[in-house]
Order: sequence, then C-alpha cells, then structure tokens
Amino acid sequence: MCHELLLPGERIDDLQLQNLRIIQHPQDFCFGMDAVLLADFAASRVFHKVCDFGTGTGILPLLLYGRNPSAAFDAVEIQEKMAERATRSVLLNSLADKITVHARDLKDVRQFLPHAAYDLVVCNPPYSESGAGLSSPIDSRRLSREEAACTLDDIAKAAQFVLKWHGRLAIMLPVARMADAFEALRRHQIEPKRMRLVHANAARDARLMLLEGVRGAKCALTVMPPLLAKDEKGNDSEEVRRIYHLV
Amino acid sequence: MCHELLLPGERIDDLQLQNLRIIQHPQDFCFGMDAVLLADFAASRVFHKVCDFGTGTGILPLLLYGRNPSAAFDAVEIQEKMAERATRSVLLNSLADKITVHARDLKDVRQFLPHAAYDLVVCNPPYSESGAGLSSPIDSRRLSREEAACTLDDIAKAAQFVLKWHGRLAIMLPVARMADAFEALRRHQIEPKRMRLVHANAARDARLMLLEGVRGAKCALTVMPPLLAKDEKGNDSEEVRRIYHLV
Repeated sequence: MCHELLLPGERIDDLQLQNLRIIQHPQDFCFGMDAVLLADFAASRVFHKVCDFGTGTGILPLLLYGRNPSAAFDAVEIQEKMAERATRSVLLNSLADKITVHARDLKDVRQFLPHAAYDLVVCNPPYSESGAGLSSPIDSRRLSREEAACTLDDIAKAAQFVLKWHGRLAIMLPVARMADAFEALRRHQIEPKRMRLVHANAARDARLMLLEGVRGAKCALTVMPPLLAKDEKGNDSEEVRRIYHLV
Repeated sequence: MCHELLLPGERIDDLQLQNLRIIQHPQDFCFGMDAVLLADFAASRVFHKVCDFGTGTGILPLLLYGRNPSAAFDAVEIQEKMAERATRSVLLNSLADKITVHARDLKDVRQFLPHAAYDLVVCNPPYSESGAGLSSPIDSRRLSREEAACTLDDIAKAAQFVLKWHGRLAIMLPVARMADAFEALRRHQIEPKRMRLVHANAARDARLMLLEGVRGAKCALTVMPPLLAKDEKGNDSEEVRRIYHLV
C-alpha cells in the first residue's frame, strides 16, 4: 500500500488504468473530467516525448503513460507542495525513470528543459468558469494569485521553446478564451489545427474547448464533432463512457 | 407575374415567406442553405439598419426583411450583372424604399455608405470548400478572380467603417478560416462574441461557422449548441426544418 508515501489527509485513488494510482488531497485541487478528456484528445495522435505545463497532481503524465508506456515525460508545476505530491505519485507507480516532475515556473522553461525536444506539450491550466482569467474557481483550492500568474502568452511562449518543429500543443480552456488562445498561439508560431468543443449536452452552449496547435504548421483549422458530456437522459454520454474506459 | 422584370434564362423563386420572391439564373450563383442559416443567425437579435456585403441575388436583405419589415437595407454587390438582377428582385417585391442595391466594391464603402450608421452587417462571401480562399467552387458559376478579390480583412475593415458602436457583423465562413476570421475582426476592433458551428450531422466535423462580432465589445466568446443539418436518419434536422419554416 506504500503508506510511507502518504502525508496526513492524503488519499490514493486508483486510475483504473494499467494499475496506475495517484495521490490526492481532498482540500487541494483534484483532477476532474477535464484532465481525462484532454488526455484522450492529446493521445489520439502519436507521442514520444511529452511535457506537461502545470501538472498539478501529475494526472496527465500518468494518463498518457497509460496510453503509451514507451513515452517519456517532463512535468512542470510551480506550486512546490503539488510538485512534491506529484513526485510521490510517480514513485508510488515506480515511474521515476519515465516521469520527471520539476517544481519550477514554466516562464523559466529555458533554464531547465531542452529546446525543440518534445513532440507534445499538454496543458490544463486552472481557470474560472467565466473565462475571465486563468485562475481557478474561488474556493479553498484556489492557487495563490502570484503563483497562478501564468498567461496564455506564457504558455504559448514556453511551448514554442520546447516543441520540435511540427510538435503539438494540446490545451483545454474555457470557450470564452478562444480568440485569445488563437492569438497567443499564432503570436508564437503555433497554428490552431484541431479543436473539439465540450457541451454539457446537445442543447447547451459549449463550455470548454480542446485545442491542438502545431508549431510551424500552415493555417486551416478542423473542428471535430461536438463532445457531449451527457445524453438526452442526463447520463454520461456513450463517448464519455468510452473515454473513461480507455484511459 | 411581372415577366417584364425577367431576362432570358432567369426564373422567379418563391421564398415561402411573406410572399417574397427572388429572381435567379440557374447558370449563376443561386442562394443555398447557407444564406437561410445566416439570416436566421443574424435575425436572432434586434436589427433596424442593415448592410449586406456581397449580396449576390439579394437573398439576405429579402430574408431579413421578411423577419423585420420595418428595417432598412443597403446591399453591396461588386458584380454588375448580379447587382442589376438583385435590383430587379427588389422591384419585383415593391421594396425599392426598403432595399437599395449598390453595384460597388465594398473596399470603397467610405465613398457611398455612411459611417457608423448600421446596427447589423451581414456577409456570406463565396468560398472554396477547402477554405483555402474566399473564391467560390471551380465551376461555371465561379466569380472572376479579379471580382472575387475580397479578403477577410477587406470585409472587417468595411464593417468597422459602417457599423455603429456595438453594432454586429454576422458572417458565414468555412471552419478552416476561423483563426483568420478572429484575427481580421480583432484587427478592426470587432470582437468575436457569438459562434455557431454547422455540422452535416452529429458524427461529422464542422463544415461552416456562423460568427457574430461586435464592434468595440469586450472579449468573451459564446459558442452555441451545434447546428446539425441532418438527423440520424439523414433527413433535414428538426432545427433546419424550423429555420426554413421561420424564414
């Protein structure tokens, strides 16, 4: 049970995927459906060397490792407490040779990650539902303002540095930020190429966007079929069930 | 029957809306579902003084007049033959006091339309399905290259000139042009505020986008529920039938 890796108040959750487990603390940010959908979206194409910006619990490297155990991961997390916990999750899964957690600011990525070395960057930044900013909802799990001070431009700039030519950035954001996201990506020569919008159901506005940009690609966006979280009866949609089964 | 308004080869089509009729020539560009969807999208909010960029047959002013007979319309069409035919459609409907067709280039809009006078600009530019440009499909109905030489930037610039503060630009484009459209609108202080994506059905990528930008508005895009053209059985979807019934 590796209880020696757990601090008071923490729990171990089974990811139902290749026996992977994750350490979380109910009073801190815990992963949600967002991360599962982003992992599925990003994993629909080949990846080998992956960087996760703002890894939080470390959920994305774990889910993506489950999809491709031959891949290698660097995960960046500015909050020391979260980075330390993600590191313990890596140890819990005996993946220290696969996943490296860096307790660093992604704005300093040039100082600790190689240039043009990654074929995939994933990023699931915390954000308010209003889309007014990238800060997380106002509750006890909110990141401190200073620590959350990371903009779409910071993300795109860091991705441009670490991505190989034609490498991919896969990011999840509130729909309200779409124009800002396109602008930030293009400013750093990452072209929006593939998008999927997440609706609660077929009758509702889209809430979240899964966006893939490709470094150095030519213009022309594809928008995939809508991803509906619930079916007409209010149950998890068939696709969400498929995704949860896959990851 | 007003046959004196018809030239050889032309026909009169009934719009099934307030007894409105339109003159079309089967060998030239005839309006399609695009125009009907755009009219419905644009008409979902109040409008009084409307400008249509690239009116073609004159279909959009006619459909929008059907939704709001108190509105006034200016319609711009660079192709003289099409502008002349649209003018005859206006006469056919006795709407010369409501709809004025200008056989002009929208790039010269400052020369013949008032500044900041319109609350709605609509635009359904011809485009290739590939989204590579704004030219229409390669067939006999293709506009001459010179005449079609109108870019997203031209459209946004002309809209910025004629729109009132907080007036709306409603445009239909291939999804592939989304990032370009956002960029062109923002360059001219028109913020993308509302979007609807048109899918052939729920399992297909989006083909077309209905986009509304608001002059001088603050950032934050809403994406409406997907508009599906067909249902699971391949019939016109309930919504498409509703829209055709409305317009």
